[in-house]
Amino acid sequence: MRKQPQSDADMQKLADLIDEVGIAMLTTEEPDGSLRSRPLATLEMDAEGKLWFFTAMSSGKVGEIDRHRKVNLSYAHVDEQNYVSISGHARLFRDQEKMNALWTPWIEPWFPNGANDPDLGLLEVTVEQAEYWDAPASRMQRLFGLAKALSTGQTDRLGEHGTVDRRQ
Amino acid sequence: MRKQPQSDADMQKLADLIDEVGIAMLTTEEPDGSLRSRPLATLEMDAEGKLWFFTAMSSGKVGEIDRHRKVNLSYAHVDEQNYVSISGHARLFRDQEKMNALWTPWIEPWFPNGANDPDLGLLEVTVEQAEYWDAPASRMQRLFGLAKALSTGQTDRLGEHGTVDRRQ
Repeated sequence: MRKQPQSDADMQKLADLIDEVGIAMLTTEEPDGSLRSRPLATLEMDAEGKLWFFTAMSSGKVGEIDRHRKVNLSYAHVDEQNYVSISGHARLFRDQEKMNALWTPWIEPWFPNGANDPDLGLLEVTVEQAEYWDAPASRMQRLFGLAKALSTGQTDRLGEHGTVDRRQ
Repeated sequence: MRKQPQSDADMQKLADLIDEVGIAMLTTEEPDGSLRSRPLATLEMDAEGKLWFFTAMSSGKVGEIDRHRKVNLSYAHVDEQNYVSISGHARLFRDQEKMNALWTPWIEPWFPNGANDPDLGLLEVTVEQAEYWDAPASRMQRLFGLAKALSTGQTDRLGEHGTVDRRQ
């Protein structure tokens, strides 16, 4: 994942946390109101804090996002006990210049037809609110840090639970 | 996590997949329409395929679920490249007998006041639809398996993407 320099320390912390996981679970609301998620590789967090992904324009999630632009991105690393929740809104579009700029060799197995594939599209997520459950190195502290976040959603003495709010 | 025997092979597969991860990211819709997720330890998949969690009745997610009972549970293990999405509906309630039955010593760090804590509650999720992105053992096959699921949402030759639909 590419990380551009962020405008403040909170967003930099967020960039570092999601870079450690890389793969997001993107949750969208379906037409019948049910919530669905699927894995997506994160390509970039740009200088404005927006997150960028490639998508196939023919995939099911395009219709879901067109209808309901609010999305959630979760980044979970169970072995490290790092968890991030990002609430934001998504935009799907094609921009050949941006797709060329984001293209990297490691994404090729996902999209073997390359950056010029007519089905390739961009998914841009604007972060409105982000929360994380982070914990220090030792096993018990992590467990307890996670525990407090799970049960109360509050900051605790050993772990860390923070919120980044970008809503105006 | 406790796994009760499941009614069919698909649900058994689902039980095995989520047992490998253990911690779910539970996504709910907030009153303003935004989607929010947080980590939760999975306690049991019962014989009817329902998933059970403890929660603090005073936590923020209680209000969110009261308003919008549709939820998503995602289970992600990035190192193993296993990803599960469960669409379902949630119910929050107190039942002392069930809480006693679910209580295990390993959950105590999360809920230090024990099974009789008046703030302890149950979160029950009924599975309506489940999808998984699973992949065989070797590194490149996993990458490619994940790749195809990411770009097309379809089954591919090397990985495996399956759906369990429990809606009537």
